[in-house]
Amino acid sequence: MAEQLAGGDLSRLRQLNALAVVRVLRGRSALTLTELSRETGLSRPSTQDVVSQLQHQGWLEEVRPEPGVMGRPARRYRFRSDAGWVLGVDVGGHTVRVLAADLDGDVGHAVRVAVAITAGRAERLAAVDAAVAECLAGAGLTGADIWAATVGTSGLVDAAGQVVLSVAYPQWTGVRLAKHVERLVGGAVLVDNDSRLAALAETWRGVARDAAHVVYLLAGLRTGAGLIVDGRLHRGFGRAAGEIGALPELGWIRAPELLRGWTGVPAGTDPDDVAGLVFAAAREGDRTAAAVVGRYARELALGAAALVLALDPQLVVLGGGFSRSADVLLGPLRREIEQRCVRLPEIVASTLGDDAVALGAVKLSLDHLREHLFDPRTGLASPVPPARRLIA
Amino acid sequence: MAEQLAGGDLSRLRQLNALAVVRVLRGRSALTLTELSRETGLSRPSTQDVVSQLQHQGWLEEVRPEPGVMGRPARRYRFRSDAGWVLGVDVGGHTVRVLAADLDGDVGHAVRVAVAITAGRAERLAAVDAAVAECLAGAGLTGADIWAATVGTSGLVDAAGQVVLSVAYPQWTGVRLAKHVERLVGGAVLVDNDSRLAALAETWRGVARDAAHVVYLLAGLRTGAGLIVDGRLHRGFGRAAGEIGALPELGWIRAPELLRGWTGVPAGTDPDDVAGLVFAAAREGDRTAAAVVGRYARELALGAAALVLALDPQLVVLGGGFSRSADVLLGPLRREIEQRCVRLPEIVASTLGDDAVALGAVKLSLDHLREHLFDPRTGLASPVPPARRLIA
Repeated sequence: MAEQLAGGDLSRLRQLNALAVVRVLRGRSALTLTELSRETGLSRPSTQDVVSQLQHQGWLEEVRPEPGVMGRPARRYRFRSDAGWVLGVDVGGHTVRVLAADLDGDVGHAVRVAVAITAGRAERLAAVDAAVAECLAGAGLTGADIWAATVGTSGLVDAAGQVVLSVAYPQWTGVRLAKHVERLVGGAVLVDNDSRLAALAETWRGVARDAAHVVYLLAGLRTGAGLIVDGRLHRGFGRAAGEIGALPELGWIRAPELLRGWTGVPAGTDPDDVAGLVFAAAREGDRTAAAVVGRYARELALGAAALVLALDPQLVVLGGGFSRSADVLLGPLRREIEQRCVRLPEIVASTLGDDAVALGAVKLSLDHLREHLFDPRTGLASPVPPARRLIA
Repeated sequence: MAEQLAGGDLSRLRQLNALAVVRVLRGRSALTLTELSRETGLSRPSTQDVVSQLQHQGWLEEVRPEPGVMGRPARRYRFRSDAGWVLGVDVGGHTVRVLAADLDGDVGHAVRVAVAITAGRAERLAAVDAAVAECLAGAGLTGADIWAATVGTSGLVDAAGQVVLSVAYPQWTGVRLAKHVERLVGGAVLVDNDSRLAALAETWRGVARDAAHVVYLLAGLRTGAGLIVDGRLHRGFGRAAGEIGALPELGWIRAPELLRGWTGVPAGTDPDDVAGLVFAAAREGDRTAAAVVGRYARELALGAAALVLALDPQLVVLGGGFSRSADVLLGPLRREIEQRCVRLPEIVASTLGDDAVALGAVKLSLDHLREHLFDPRTGLASPVPPARRLIA
């Protein structure tokens, strides 16, 4: 075992060294050869060798010295985070959102396209096509530049990227979402549940960055949950984890209806706009609205408490559309959960707003690339869109 | 990075080689030097060198050739699984169980000591002391031979091995169980929740050996749950995971009472014996008893369904005292869970019987030793009881 490592062959060693250099440079500004050598533990000649190779392959580029620097400054190299791109797509009830991001996850372009909640399958897929096309054009990219894309949707999704059960959108059960989006981009296409992707986004760029155990609540016109266990997205054995809302005893099915039932709403209001009016009225001191918010919080807390008691998370994140009204919702929710739990986790509102699902989709795409392109077992692939068959 | 490995120093290399030999031999019968060399990938001289060192330290011993073998047979070596011992202790409501097992997990001696459910803290701790002493004596060991012990108890346990909340036994909240048992053994003492340890036992030697996601139900005079997520015991952020029974809406608090309420029970029966009578009557076709079992199954299924919907396990294991009546309980339980779930997991009864918690405690002790004694970072410790301060 140890003997084999000691005699490891040269090309394998070069791959490991190249990965070490890329790992040090990713998400950082430029470094000199001396700095790279120190941080990787490689000798100076080895570092020089690896950097030349990576530069040739297109993974690194030399950075021009800043003007005004005296003498001959040392050459500095940076990781070409724009060598490849990923997409994050959120197929929502009223909106399709698409983010294009580089390999560091920096968002280059964002697009949202409206779609009716009543839209059938073809209409919703057409909105996806339009949003992806607009986002690519806006970012100056083509589908061939996209190394990986992830699509978030409500409902249960299987490993092949098909929606196997959805009650939120008409004609959505059975849609082969991965196959559909694979027509649009060069790289692999992943599909996952939207609550789950939003939870992932919170651990990446949201309020859950330091938490290994997280319950994310998608509170909006629908109610859902995404779970982070031991720092990782928990999907379960059959990709059906987090579906606590299906248990009638726990109130998530009727919860949004409670808000729509507020009697203070003007006649003719779009049912989807009622919740915002209730929260606004509660904020301004309307007691009947506050009572409705309290009842909603109680039903939301039942399912949340079940998840908290089951998993004992460090953090509960209130996300989804209603998290914009966290100022009136968070207090009652916290009280209702507290009454039911053995150990009370921290309960905070998301700050990612409506981008949470699409951001989580970007993150899952990047995680996929990290596993398949920056893998110590296989080494680095060149920065050309990898054939779908190779990394899917 | 790779360069440093290539130049790794000799003692580090010897440690890795020793671990490789031990890893190949553990849980196996004896092997020759030739076989060891082939399986570890070490050269023959290196293997010889490492085996001599391990034999000197007491980790390996030479096995006598079988009588009747002709010529001079090659020397064969085996791992000395009896170089160290662990204890698994189950502090139950009516019984304290103790298992002594060797480093392969083979149980050398088992003891059970009765204790009244009404026993106070001192009396229950005295039963623990008696059971541990009897088990050590029966196995021909002293406390100094025990490298690690794990104690299972109902209730919430903190990282220091103190019971921070227990409603099952009188005066049990606040007991410093780790400190108490540390007086009795030489090695580290761990304390964990009993349902959790039983779940661990199922993944080790029970019906969940091949499952990475498991919900274990402790169904008996108390109801509890232990969760396996991604192949690992899930404790949660504050060691309070699995406490779904605390939610009144999910029926676990009242479930065992339903069985005790059966009207067919003879006057004067010990309340703790009623459940067994109900299951027996249902088995013999008594319709009122079957109806009570059905109602119990419904309440048990509510909490189980919440866990299944939350986690999407591959397997639900029905364990605890009532699993002895799985022939009448499993059918109704399965039907009730099925009605409530999005994806139905396999639902099976435990076959470990009353030993599940103590077996899980043995396994946790062995896992602790593996992490601390067979760790590639620190190498092997000698087979003398490691000082508690070193491995606790």
